[in-house]
Amino acid sequence: MSRPTRTPVQDQDPGPPGVPPSPSDPVDSLIRDFLRVRRASTGLCSTLEPEDFVLQSMPDASPAKWHLAHTTWFFEEFILSAVDPGYRTFHPRFSFLFNSYYNAVGERIPRPRRGLLSRPTVREALAYRESIDERMVVLLRSADPSQVERFAPLVVLGLNHEQQHQELLLTDLKHALWHNPLRPAFRDRPAGPAVDAAPRRWISYPEGVRWIGHGGDGFAFDNEGPRHRQFVEAFRVASRPATSGEFLEFIADGGYDRPDHWLSDGWAAVQQHGWRAPLYWERGDDGWSTFTLAGMRPVDPAEPACHVSYYEADAFARWSGCRLLTEAEWETAADVAVSGNFADDERFHPAPPAGGPENEPAQVFGDVWEWTASAYLPYPGFRPAKGAVGEYNGKFMCNQHVLRGGSCATPRSHIRPTYRNFFYPDARWQFSGVRLAQVG
Amino acid sequence: MSRPTRTPVQDQDPGPPGVPPSPSDPVDSLIRDFLRVRRASTGLCSTLEPEDFVLQSMPDASPAKWHLAHTTWFFEEFILSAVDPGYRTFHPRFSFLFNSYYNAVGERIPRPRRGLLSRPTVREALAYRESIDERMVVLLRSADPSQVERFAPLVVLGLNHEQQHQELLLTDLKHALWHNPLRPAFRDRPAGPAVDAAPRRWISYPEGVRWIGHGGDGFAFDNEGPRHRQFVEAFRVASRPATSGEFLEFIADGGYDRPDHWLSDGWAAVQQHGWRAPLYWERGDDGWSTFTLAGMRPVDPAEPACHVSYYEADAFARWSGCRLLTEAEWETAADVAVSGNFADDERFHPAPPAGGPENEPAQVFGDVWEWTASAYLPYPGFRPAKGAVGEYNGKFMCNQHVLRGGSCATPRSHIRPTYRNFFYPDARWQFSGVRLAQVG
Amino acid sequence: MSRPTRTPVQDQDPGPPGVPPSPSDPVDSLIRDFLRVRRASTGLCSTLEPEDFVLQSMPDASPAKWHLAHTTWFFEEFILSAVDPGYRTFHPRFSFLFNSYYNAVGERIPRPRRGLLSRPTVREALAYRESIDERMVVLLRSADPSQVERFAPLVVLGLNHEQQHQELLLTDLKHALWHNPLRPAFRDRPAGPAVDAAPRRWISYPEGVRWIGHGGDGFAFDNEGPRHRQFVEAFRVASRPATSGEFLEFIADGGYDRPDHWLSDGWAAVQQHGWRAPLYWERGDDGWSTFTLAGMRPVDPAEPACHVSYYEADAFARWSGCRLLTEAEWETAADVAVSGNFADDERFHPAPPAGGPENEPAQVFGDVWEWTASAYLPYPGFRPAKGAVGEYNGKFMCNQHVLRGGSCATPRSHIRPTYRNFFYPDARWQFSGVRLAQVG
Amino acid sequence: MSRPTRTPVQDQDPGPPGVPPSPSDPVDSLIRDFLRVRRASTGLCSTLEPEDFVLQSMPDASPAKWHLAHTTWFFEEFILSAVDPGYRTFHPRFSFLFNSYYNAVGERIPRPRRGLLSRPTVREALAYRESIDERMVVLLRSADPSQVERFAPLVVLGLNHEQQHQELLLTDLKHALWHNPLRPAFRDRPAGPAVDAAPRRWISYPEGVRWIGHGGDGFAFDNEGPRHRQFVEAFRVASRPATSGEFLEFIADGGYDRPDHWLSDGWAAVQQHGWRAPLYWERGDDGWSTFTLAGMRPVDPAEPACHVSYYEADAFARWSGCRLLTEAEWETAADVAVSGNFADDERFHPAPPAGGPENEPAQVFGDVWEWTASAYLPYPGFRPAKGAVGEYNGKFMCNQHVLRGGSCATPRSHIRPTYRNFFYPDARWQFSGVRLAQVG
Repeated sequence: MSRPTRTPVQDQDPGPPGVPPSPSDPVDSLIRDFLRVRRASTGLCSTLEPEDFVLQSMPDASPAKWHLAHTTWFFEEFILSAVDPGYRTFHPRFSFLFNSYYNAVGERIPRPRRGLLSRPTVREALAYRESIDERMVVLLRSADPSQVERFAPLVVLGLNHEQQHQELLLTDLKHALWHNPLRPAFRDRPAGPAVDAAPRRWISYPEGVRWIGHGGDGFAFDNEGPRHRQFVEAFRVASRPATSGEFLEFIADGGYDRPDHWLSDGWAAVQQHGWRAPLYWERGDDGWSTFTLAGMRPVDPAEPACHVSYYEADAFARWSGCRLLTEAEWETAADVAVSGNFADDERFHPAPPAGGPENEPAQVFGDVWEWTASAYLPYPGFRPAKGAVGEYNGKFMCNQHVLRGGSCATPRSHIRPTYRNFFYPDARWQFSGVRLAQVG
Repeated sequence: MSRPTRTPVQDQDPGPPGVPPSPSDPVDSLIRDFLRVRRASTGLCSTLEPEDFVLQSMPDASPAKWHLAHTTWFFEEFILSAVDPGYRTFHPRFSFLFNSYYNAVGERIPRPRRGLLSRPTVREALAYRESIDERMVVLLRSADPSQVERFAPLVVLGLNHEQQHQELLLTDLKHALWHNPLRPAFRDRPAGPAVDAAPRRWISYPEGVRWIGHGGDGFAFDNEGPRHRQFVEAFRVASRPATSGEFLEFIADGGYDRPDHWLSDGWAAVQQHGWRAPLYWERGDDGWSTFTLAGMRPVDPAEPACHVSYYEADAFARWSGCRLLTEAEWETAADVAVSGNFADDERFHPAPPAGGPENEPAQVFGDVWEWTASAYLPYPGFRPAKGAVGEYNGKFMCNQHVLRGGSCATPRSHIRPTYRNFFYPDARWQFSGVRLAQVG
Repeated sequence: MSRPTRTPVQDQDPGPPGVPPSPSDPVDSLIRDFLRVRRASTGLCSTLEPEDFVLQSMPDASPAKWHLAHTTWFFEEFILSAVDPGYRTFHPRFSFLFNSYYNAVGERIPRPRRGLLSRPTVREALAYRESIDERMVVLLRSADPSQVERFAPLVVLGLNHEQQHQELLLTDLKHALWHNPLRPAFRDRPAGPAVDAAPRRWISYPEGVRWIGHGGDGFAFDNEGPRHRQFVEAFRVASRPATSGEFLEFIADGGYDRPDHWLSDGWAAVQQHGWRAPLYWERGDDGWSTFTLAGMRPVDPAEPACHVSYYEADAFARWSGCRLLTEAEWETAADVAVSGNFADDERFHPAPPAGGPENEPAQVFGDVWEWTASAYLPYPGFRPAKGAVGEYNGKFMCNQHVLRGGSCATPRSHIRPTYRNFFYPDARWQFSGVRLAQVG
Repeated sequence: MSRPTRTPVQDQDPGPPGVPPSPSDPVDSLIRDFLRVRRASTGLCSTLEPEDFVLQSMPDASPAKWHLAHTTWFFEEFILSAVDPGYRTFHPRFSFLFNSYYNAVGERIPRPRRGLLSRPTVREALAYRESIDERMVVLLRSADPSQVERFAPLVVLGLNHEQQHQELLLTDLKHALWHNPLRPAFRDRPAGPAVDAAPRRWISYPEGVRWIGHGGDGFAFDNEGPRHRQFVEAFRVASRPATSGEFLEFIADGGYDRPDHWLSDGWAAVQQHGWRAPLYWERGDDGWSTFTLAGMRPVDPAEPACHVSYYEADAFARWSGCRLLTEAEWETAADVAVSGNFADDERFHPAPPAGGPENEPAQVFGDVWEWTASAYLPYPGFRPAKGAVGEYNGKFMCNQHVLRGGSCATPRSHIRPTYRNFFYPDARWQFSGVRLAQVG
């Protein structure tokens, strides 16, 4: 998401009492969820050196240490400080350092300077996390049921927020390590056996009025609602994301050389940045290779193409004689089980497709986010949440495009069919790919 | 439109034979239309000094002389040269100088350098127009019916293209003259009597599936089709555009000081450009005044607010507790007669609203273009025209917002309910305003 | 000079009474000089179209109309207004429009926007000149001797100022016309017969303490004094400027490809701007040609190389196994008659060398300004003049290099051996060339 | 120095045999010098956290780790690799990572990206240093006298190079830590007692021809020679550098508000950067404080003013009715003992002046570098050294000004009267100050 350091916002209609999803005692399960998500963040960093935590390779990215501290600050600012008027902050300047963009909360360090913070050290940042976690657990255990009912939604919000930052921590770190000519690996991974990509098939959907957006139980961000109707013409959707092999054909056919494939702004971006292939791809004497979180690897033609901008996705689709899906089409097609290659699998790279049912699209969830043809705009009747946590989704509803389905860097429990991710059309450092569509 | 130097593109379905709209002999009426539109362009320039024709105040704008020559080049390139293989161009370098952005036609002078062309002189540019007009009339008169049938649509296209440039000529010139501290008037205009703005009423529309887009006879650009269905929720629309008086309230209430009214990108634009009011507004000791094509004038609170960006339109709407209309809503509400204050009236400035029927919106056409909440995207099933003239609308379908209804600088015969104008959200030099909407 | 719109400043010691250089009645000859210089400015513009007067091709350059009006404003501001407290300005806004950079005189239009002024028109600007000229002549004729003695130095200053702008008018116009793909000629000129460049000889000077700078009678700018001593080691100087033919050898030998010839900042400029040859040179199928004020011409190997930056001059010298002269060396060698190819000759382009005495350097004056190795710094004991006219030379004494000797665009009566011109090291649009030197 | 990552270059005339300065056995003393300088670098870093080593706050600065590795690479590249054709580098990519700007040695990582290198880690960089140090000692011990004679000058050069980087390590780190809102201290330092600044006196020197530059025994950089004569007019020099108290007066008198004090480029820098005081100064409720390597401290009026650009030094001098010294004047006045407040004192901040002889200038060495009025240009007859180490001083001889005398961050053994430091006139992050001069 293009404002990667935002805070999630609770759905308008949080559903029936007993919000937190787990069964059994609600407080116990909330604490269990809390500790599980919090530990997942530090777990991602287990192989990092202290020096790695400081890197910031572009204004849109943040250092790993910043992600760890900012997600902690969320719980301190919006729960611990809010609940206890006499709360003493862990450090008086951390709010300045680790606020992201909440105008309502006060000033903050300019985003492009986050990479200039050697202090607090990693050790101190981890101590900050431990201190806040302890206080949170004490708070949750000691609260009476009415209190829990009040701030449990905020805890759930904070955990979803943290999961977003887990994905950003991975993509930001990948971008930073790539700048190092030594091309260090974040986490080693054995090469798998070569497989063939499944052939592309088309799955058809008839025209009709569709219900779109989140409206049921369980957590969702405010931008996923209100649930509403859209008229959708008949369409056909590809059975799997476009592969790196197909992108190699696009390149070989002069895809990056011919303006007629491209949106005008896209062609300008190609010229300005000198794009000749997806981000992280390099052509060597032995063919194309790509930087992954496991270091440099040959480009695998069977894998979903990844790290492309909206412009590239759109140009590739046009070259293919197809187009991208709209959000409503995507959500119509996404009526399948949520399974796939996620951060939990620790592969941290898209995988060639496994088999699946004939009559439904595969790899809808996980692997790569899929750019849609839809600009990121409010659904009819949308209203942002009140207060600082409302500065989250609504104010970014301009100049961006929606991506759907999650990626190999998304925690599995974070994604759902109505989930709307969004980035500027020139963004390439997320695990973003392409699924083709056609008139039905 | 944000690529102001494009060429219009013929509708997919040009309708039944006998396309040109006028009655009587089709060729006669085509020639009559041709000469009328061509003369309107030079008529706009009747009060200009030779020095005025050269000015280019920003890359998005073009000199008046360039507009005159570029629209002429369109007829030379796409009709005269295309019809006659032995055609000798008026000047061998004019294609380089006066092509706008057609990659398919060849290289061209960089847009930001159009203001560096003192030659050809104005006199030579007018001679170019006369020569091409003569050849066009000769061609039309001498053609047999099957030829006319073939290139009449291109002539109509060229005339619609020229009308777009007539509007741009006015807005570009306004922008250029404004930079001159002498604030010269383009055309004098007597001050009218002070009137009160009509009070704002709300007009309601029920939910339902609506047919949107152009599908009938007569000329339309390719981006207005295909005609298709959209589900539209119930909504209410303001009876007239927001006025300068209402914008003065927004300013007085700190509208430009508070980030919570603004989209994130909009707030960044406010900071970057130092926006404190609509473009051309200046606060003096005697209150607000504004630069018009008749020179500096006091801001008239009864007039429609004008020269605002999408960001300002959106922030003003949020401050008003409302929102902007979507394209589908706008088109639903635009089921009224096409009348209003157009370029033909030679006022060249929005006017306070006159009376109108109680139960329908007023000032829908003319006065100010109305920013919609809709990003400029293709309609379902959209396909651009073939060849160079297809490089017109489709490739700009990203990062822009749609405006509807025409302005005081639009020729009356150019506008219709399905017309889609589009500009980047930070553009302010068009006659762009705001109409508010609400949930129905 | 790199602040091309400055006002000259009177020498510290204006010399004995009767300052103006002409013989006979001092007032008569002052008026004669005044009218001669003023008419030379308009004479330069005799072949221009009104549209040409408006062009500004870069922030460092100004439109021809601006030069005509700014030099007029100088006489209005510093003489007419100063002499008569009741003076009514020709136009109340012209001071804002035509002041250049005098902080002490008040605000002014930003330099890069001078090209946005279509008004006043050329006709009005010429009327402004005529009006001020008339008033100046009336003033001079009616003044008593003590008054004349007081403001005659300012008149002389204003005329020298105007002569500087005559050169800038030519170089700015050349730069602007060059951007036009039609490559229009400013003034036609017949091609001369091909000649061979004179062979380069070396002329030697012994070491010693030298007197440098202006100290005698006659007009000089403040930066030419005080006259002072410098110790100069023995040196040898080339008998003529480097030729285009020698520069072609430099290019052919990879001069623009090898960083070891270049200053670090110079090499960065080569990379940034993509320099491959002097400004205005173009390589075609028939070899090198260059844009001149008479249109495109083949590069003449016998002509002095021209339109090179300090960086190119320095790199060429290093490649030649030589170096540039210091100011003190140049002034030592310039002990020759002031003659050569000047603006008065209306060639407006450097010429191959004619013959000359064996034992002295040729083409010292006229043809091309010669970059020196000396940074533009104050002479020992330098003090700028008092008041606004003191904002002229002193405040530019940083980051620039000195050029000596005048060019084919300099009025002959404007130059002298002590004259110090100065520009930033990356400037190329003046008629700037190279003379080589060596250890003696 | 403005290319802070250069390599020193041996003097043209290295003096008599037995170059290394120490007595006793030349090899023993060379090894002793080698280890002393090398250990001083790591000693400076003793209080740093691993995260601190990575910071790069601007393109002109480098991370501490980079300084440690780059100085090591110098010995590996120019000595170990050069001596032994079969030498195996410590790491094959380190030459790419730790070369600075030697075009002759090959490609290198872009300077602004040095802050993106988390790997090699600090631990690995220190291992690199230890390995190279060991090999250097082995080489020196095992070499025969003729070999030592050959590469001893390069070792001395490498040590002088390393001392330059020690100073840069301190100034770069200060700049980086200052960006952290926590304002961490590099090294604590107790506050000293308040003292009064010595009153400013003037010391006079008569006119005459002076010998300038290095010509004797001992190490010097190539830019310090050849020794040559200059004619110097009579002048007077201030007995001590200008103090912070005097700079406070300049500020209070509107020094940063009035363009007439400033060079034109200086005034542009004031506007562009918003300069209101020397770098690191902040005005709070309790008056002015400044960031030091010991954290935030009140501005001490008795201390030499520091962290000013050339523009500020020049403007301050003009406001004082004085000027800066030329290099020749400075060197004439610097005929005093080399003593003062250096890096060896571990104060890392200028100190108020102690007493000294009445008739000679104080604080000539150490405390603050003194900006001179002299542009950085070659001395007559200057020739750079051959080969890659010649890409050191000569190619920067444009657009910079010379500073003299060393600072509180300079190692004492590194400075001498002929030493020429140089930076661009807008540089402020060095310990740079002002000494005033007047006509004698």
